[in-house]
Amino acid sequence: MKCGLSLDIRDVDETSINIDPIQVGGRLTADAMKAVIAYGDGYSVCDNCRKPNRLDMIKSPPIDAFHRDLAAFLNMDEARVVPGARRGFQAVAGTYVKKGDPVLLTALSHYTEFLSVEAYGGIPLEIGMSPGHIITADAAGEKIDWVRREYGKPPKIIYLDHFDYQYGNEHEVKGIIKVAKQNDIPVLYNGAYTVGIMPVDGRSLGADFVVGSAHKSMASPAPSGVLAATKERAGEVFRTTKAEADLTKRTFGIKEVEMMGCTLMGVTLVGMMASFPHVRERVKHWEHHLRNSRMIVDALLAINGTTVKSEYPRRHTLTRIDTSGSFDTVARTHKKRGFFLTSALKEKGIAGTIPGATKVWKFNTYGLTDAQAQYTANAFQEIAVGNGLPVSR
Amino acid sequence: MKCGLSLDIRDVDETSINIDPIQVGGRLTADAMKAVIAYGDGYSVCDNCRKPNRLDMIKSPPIDAFHRDLAAFLNMDEARVVPGARRGFQAVAGTYVKKGDPVLLTALSHYTEFLSVEAYGGIPLEIGMSPGHIITADAAGEKIDWVRREYGKPPKIIYLDHFDYQYGNEHEVKGIIKVAKQNDIPVLYNGAYTVGIMPVDGRSLGADFVVGSAHKSMASPAPSGVLAATKERAGEVFRTTKAEADLTKRTFGIKEVEMMGCTLMGVTLVGMMASFPHVRERVKHWEHHLRNSRMIVDALLAINGTTVKSEYPRRHTLTRIDTSGSFDTVARTHKKRGFFLTSALKEKGIAGTIPGATKVWKFNTYGLTDAQAQYTANAFQEIAVGNGLPVSR
Repeated sequence: MKCGLSLDIRDVDETSINIDPIQVGGRLTADAMKAVIAYGDGYSVCDNCRKPNRLDMIKSPPIDAFHRDLAAFLNMDEARVVPGARRGFQAVAGTYVKKGDPVLLTALSHYTEFLSVEAYGGIPLEIGMSPGHIITADAAGEKIDWVRREYGKPPKIIYLDHFDYQYGNEHEVKGIIKVAKQNDIPVLYNGAYTVGIMPVDGRSLGADFVVGSAHKSMASPAPSGVLAATKERAGEVFRTTKAEADLTKRTFGIKEVEMMGCTLMGVTLVGMMASFPHVRERVKHWEHHLRNSRMIVDALLAINGTTVKSEYPRRHTLTRIDTSGSFDTVARTHKKRGFFLTSALKEKGIAGTIPGATKVWKFNTYGLTDAQAQYTANAFQEIAVGNGLPVSR
Repeated sequence: MKCGLSLDIRDVDETSINIDPIQVGGRLTADAMKAVIAYGDGYSVCDNCRKPNRLDMIKSPPIDAFHRDLAAFLNMDEARVVPGARRGFQAVAGTYVKKGDPVLLTALSHYTEFLSVEAYGGIPLEIGMSPGHIITADAAGEKIDWVRREYGKPPKIIYLDHFDYQYGNEHEVKGIIKVAKQNDIPVLYNGAYTVGIMPVDGRSLGADFVVGSAHKSMASPAPSGVLAATKERAGEVFRTTKAEADLTKRTFGIKEVEMMGCTLMGVTLVGMMASFPHVRERVKHWEHHLRNSRMIVDALLAINGTTVKSEYPRRHTLTRIDTSGSFDTVARTHKKRGFFLTSALKEKGIAGTIPGATKVWKFNTYGLTDAQAQYTANAFQEIAVGNGLPVSR
């Protein structure tokens, strides 16, 4: 089936158990799907935009209330929707980072964090990771001291991923934020892998900013996300325009510079809003999703030769697994080579792994039902057994 | 009907003739609506993202081919999709504008152009308009000379709206670009009100950059847009990251700094793609839409006391009309006051004007069928006659 001339219908999440590392938290809820259909047209949320003409102040649909709910959900003072987490990083970098400023990221930071610093001429520097791939408060403290010595000034800001995209490991965000506070350095908490799937309390963490990715973890269409701030920082990152036109003397009201005015004028925002009541509920069930994930990881580890690259026991549903000693040994002689695994999973209705990957690969089991989780665990073991790999039960 | 807890279904474009100034070019095509349903989920276009992992290089769905088609459509060398025209302005400002740099906009520039300059510390300066609200090449030349004298250097870049958002007037873009070239100043052509509804040939205009708004004029979901560039400028605005992490020594491949990596990872991009064949076709029929618009404007002008604030005859379907001497005289004594007009239009199934506006207001008739256009023209006159206003036929 086609939409338009060359666009195939996408039905991976309708026809398969999808364990794609980045997609599972962004699957729409049924309400979001309805909203997407109703609000597909361009500026669809602007029907009732009235003075002072700002997206987060529109009352119908209740975008203003949604913004307040979003801030409360993250226990922060102010929130704005943005076209993806990366545009939240960009807004913060645009506010604080000047040419030559050192900025602390981590050895597991996402590339978009580096880009946001680079875009403003900052110098991105990493907090190192432990041998177990954890970013610790001690390492952060040491790096801050090092930056002071090397640059004669502290880092302008620190970006911290609560769970990283490579291992899905949990990092010492609370401890690092404490160290940052002692050094008067503001902290951006990157919740791309937390906001929308597990509870996040920005105030209790001490974060100055909380960034979330709605298309990654809030069951929303792309590009969408949230940037929340404390009251103090909101005045900086959400500062309004000071421009005055030289000839017409126009000014531009309360438009926010780093937001470029309005951000998500249609389907993306409405998708976030429609999913939000479900998202607010689902974060309470994180432990359940984690249990299912651990069960699947253990099923994989029971296949002899498999190891887990992520911290163990798992604290996130995103896991980096190493099947060099198991599935990859099959790949060496299988007529489909490395593609045998993806192919066997596909036959069992499981999608989302990288085609051909049998050594180190990632998967994310967030959102699976208990039955799907059990089925997935069994499927991995059946594929192993079917290909002559010993499984310890 | 509700999607979710508090979100009403939106059906203005299904139940009414919508003449909203900003919405009419962004209504989805039927193919885009199908695509929106199929690709609603978060990272829906990333199923087949392979190394080097960049959105514009994905082959399935055919995003790579779409990017080439988009550049060809605008007769430019390279194109990227962006989360709205404003993010195109931002990328260009981020590339060229440093603190204290003078940048030329116009007396009719959109506020987002001002914000993009302000965000990077530039000084936005306006090219003046003629008494008829036209930005001329002569005015541009004079302002460039003035900037050289006042700032000791030429403007860093010029942003030009082909048609402005206030009057829908056509400005002397070709002539202004010629003057800019003589002064070696790059020009950003803002086609928010042209790209996707009328033919735009960036190369023949001499533009360095062409920006379009897909949710405004390319029948796409928000936020979406395009930034196209000449080969020479593409190397600058689409420069790839040079960042290298200090500890891990990671580099980030061919990710583009000003794009923040990938931009539209799902429904917005697929909406653009599904509408694109229709958009490419519809720009050929611009004159037809313009004729219908002129007919409606003339019907309004036949209501005694009405004048048009926009240039006349009209060259765009967006028009600023002045009914202070006609509908507003009714409002003074009508029990619904100024709301009588919106209300009367609503009864006739016409939507999209600002509630209460009877003095100076804007409307856009783009996309109406001949029958809808005739109906709309008649409706205005019937409302006039019904309220005792004389109409010259």
